[in-house]
Amino acid sequence: MASGKEVAQGLQWRVMVPCGTSLKLEMESGSIDQEGLWLYHLVLAAKLKVSGFMKKAWKIGADDPRKVVHGIKVGLALALVSVFYYTRPLYDGVGGTAMWAIMTVVVVFEFTVGGSLYKGLNRAIATLSAGALAVGIHWLASKSKETAEHIILGSAVFFLSSAATFSRFIPTVKVQFDYGITIFILTFSLVALSGYRVDELFDLAKRRLTTIAIGVSICLLVCILICPVWAGEDLHLLITRNMEKLADSLVVCVDKYLKEGGIDGDKEASCQNLQGYKCVLNSKASEDSLANLARWEPAHGRFSFRYPWRQYQKVSAAMRDCAYCIETLNSCINSETQAPHSIKKHISDVCVKLSLECSKVLKELASSIKSMKKSARINYLVGEMNNAVEELLDAFRSLQQADSVPLFESLPVVTVASLLIEISVRTDRVVDAVEDLASLACFEPADSEKPELSKPPTSSVSSIVSQGEDAMKALQQV
Amino acid sequence: MASGKEVAQGLQWRVMVPCGTSLKLEMESGSIDQEGLWLYHLVLAAKLKVSGFMKKAWKIGADDPRKVVHGIKVGLALALVSVFYYTRPLYDGVGGTAMWAIMTVVVVFEFTVGGSLYKGLNRAIATLSAGALAVGIHWLASKSKETAEHIILGSAVFFLSSAATFSRFIPTVKVQFDYGITIFILTFSLVALSGYRVDELFDLAKRRLTTIAIGVSICLLVCILICPVWAGEDLHLLITRNMEKLADSLVVCVDKYLKEGGIDGDKEASCQNLQGYKCVLNSKASEDSLANLARWEPAHGRFSFRYPWRQYQKVSAAMRDCAYCIETLNSCINSETQAPHSIKKHISDVCVKLSLECSKVLKELASSIKSMKKSARINYLVGEMNNAVEELLDAFRSLQQADSVPLFESLPVVTVASLLIEISVRTDRVVDAVEDLASLACFEPADSEKPELSKPPTSSVSSIVSQGEDAMKALQQV
Repeated sequence: MASGKEVAQGLQWRVMVPCGTSLKLEMESGSIDQEGLWLYHLVLAAKLKVSGFMKKAWKIGADDPRKVVHGIKVGLALALVSVFYYTRPLYDGVGGTAMWAIMTVVVVFEFTVGGSLYKGLNRAIATLSAGALAVGIHWLASKSKETAEHIILGSAVFFLSSAATFSRFIPTVKVQFDYGITIFILTFSLVALSGYRVDELFDLAKRRLTTIAIGVSICLLVCILICPVWAGEDLHLLITRNMEKLADSLVVCVDKYLKEGGIDGDKEASCQNLQGYKCVLNSKASEDSLANLARWEPAHGRFSFRYPWRQYQKVSAAMRDCAYCIETLNSCINSETQAPHSIKKHISDVCVKLSLECSKVLKELASSIKSMKKSARINYLVGEMNNAVEELLDAFRSLQQADSVPLFESLPVVTVASLLIEISVRTDRVVDAVEDLASLACFEPADSEKPELSKPPTSSVSSIVSQGEDAMKALQQV
Repeated sequence: MASGKEVAQGLQWRVMVPCGTSLKLEMESGSIDQEGLWLYHLVLAAKLKVSGFMKKAWKIGADDPRKVVHGIKVGLALALVSVFYYTRPLYDGVGGTAMWAIMTVVVVFEFTVGGSLYKGLNRAIATLSAGALAVGIHWLASKSKETAEHIILGSAVFFLSSAATFSRFIPTVKVQFDYGITIFILTFSLVALSGYRVDELFDLAKRRLTTIAIGVSICLLVCILICPVWAGEDLHLLITRNMEKLADSLVVCVDKYLKEGGIDGDKEASCQNLQGYKCVLNSKASEDSLANLARWEPAHGRFSFRYPWRQYQKVSAAMRDCAYCIETLNSCINSETQAPHSIKKHISDVCVKLSLECSKVLKELASSIKSMKKSARINYLVGEMNNAVEELLDAFRSLQQADSVPLFESLPVVTVASLLIEISVRTDRVVDAVEDLASLACFEPADSEKPELSKPPTSSVSSIVSQGEDAMKALQQV
């Protein structure tokens, strides 16, 4: 939005400049020149608008060249279909069979393999089942009188399309068969209302199915063989990247607050790192859609068929819980301008240490998911994180014993510390979710001399987690 | 998900029961009975699955009967199209003109008027422009030799479809013209690859456009005239309902914590109210899509054309910021089991008061949006909220003066109080966003004896808001 506005402002300015210099000309040469200038400005404005749009498009392509490749792939698939049909010229026209192949390619070709498979399979199955059903009802109707026939067919279309449309509101149906239902209604209506005789219909159905099959095959071949984009891999990358961003933004956030006394000074500098948690907050919709599409994909790369994609959504939900806390922490920090250095100093080291330990845990989890290996160090790191929580609590106890520090002065620091402890508790939940993922997706055991480390010993994760929760409770109860 | 699991468990159990009782039978009558039983169980299982599905569907229909009506409307539109074309029988078959009318109705008819308008207009404009372009290129190509003609047409299809596909990745294009681009590629490819002569093409294009126009008209007439569902109105309702839920969950959350000492006792009881903020956290995707569709809708009810739907997204972003804080507050409360009653008692009244005042402000805003009238009471309520913040700070000062309360004991209460103050600051931002909405959407002035109340006097909202922020700063600085 900001860049759009900038472009518009730039536009205004550049158009205004010739406007200013043109005043003299105008007085000399009258209305014809004025008209020419008006046209000139219009062309200039259009040129600027177009160049702004092209710059935006160029940036999108440069950031992710796969998007450009996708465009070329669609063009290629269409060219292949047309070559296929040019061998027997299309002089039966737009209404002919080839139309369905072109239509299939245009409608089914999606950015990810999962998307194309979802649409292709939905289209094929829906066409087949709706066609069969429509031919059946046609056959039934053809046994009765002509008026009755029309009534039977009309009411069949009415009731089936109503029911099918309604079924799209059922979440499980919506997620897996939304496109299929559209095609079902379409095919059923077309066949039922066509007015063909039943034997003609069989011929038509056969031809239409063949064409759709050819369209879907060309589409899937191009999609899978040329630089395939797998929804599963994208989801995998998105989750690990978001986890790293979360870790970074936590550290930057605490660091800025405690070490430099407010971040108003160089807000822009490490703004990108600081705002990383926002990616986690905003990526739910794309994660859900990628997870749904990934389920349609065959085994690819390191991912088997029936890989537990759903678990990624759980990991990301746990990450989002962390991000909510960081968001609150961030605003606590932003609203603070002058920090009471005496108290800050007392606990700043332990706070920074805790944030670093949380961040190390998150980064270890990210690299464990990335490499698809169980981590040998995670138990150790979680232990360190819980030690840091203990240290923070100890720091508070000593603050209390010092007695010289009044309650009111320590309020902001207390809030930040409380939130940090809550974040460590939530990081523990991310650990749990990733461990579930590791066991569901059969991650390789860790490269470790002590193999028992890869399975949590009785006194490790769960007890450490409960220790962390106890610590949190202690902080809130005492 | 839970109900699905329940059904599956119920299924297992009921199937198991006849299995147990069948053991005797089996021994007497051998394998034929066994096969019969196997079939019986299969039918029973299928019956249970279907009945579970039907119950789910029934619940969806009962919760929002508009969804059932939508199904019937789609059936009706299809019936109308078929009646329209039965007057001159469809014996030119599936490939004939009527096909495009049926296809248009099936593909364009959406739940909301905005959705149908978006798709209908996109389809019409894309068909028109792609058709014109394709005929033009066809005409150019027809001037050259046959081989060159094929190459020109093929490369035009390749480059245009690649470029159009890529343009879908540009966010502004994606939001407004995604469907149109699909139809553009489809129409262009069909016409360019058809092999018709140019004069034939004009005739074809005219027929196809007429049919699509008839399809779109029937579709829009049914959609708008029979129980229309307006995306804008849905968005309006969603925002006000979410605001009320936010207000309720804040009050319930604080109430449970301070008055009853933890909410583990009757967690289920007012669970629904407590979890209201989650609706706010999870509704971003549907709000964005409703806001995009609402822009296509004409004036309806109390909403003018070009109503500022984008501002609703800003209001909802401000609400989500509040919800993040409530989420953190809620988890602070949940992880606490035994409350230190002495301290709680000291500040519980002011905390409850502050949460009530925040909630009153949110409810007033919700009713202001609902009635589309500026609120006369909002300045007063914001003032009260800020007074409550002051009272909370005073309570802390007196806690400090008492000196008998050590820091460590008051930690959880301090965190809750800090979060409450942060929530009041964020509520102020919701007030700002709603005031922007009120001025953009030209809400009616408040029903008030003193008309100057509807416009904030110099010393009111902005200064009160800054007072609130000052109070927050004071809390964190002192």
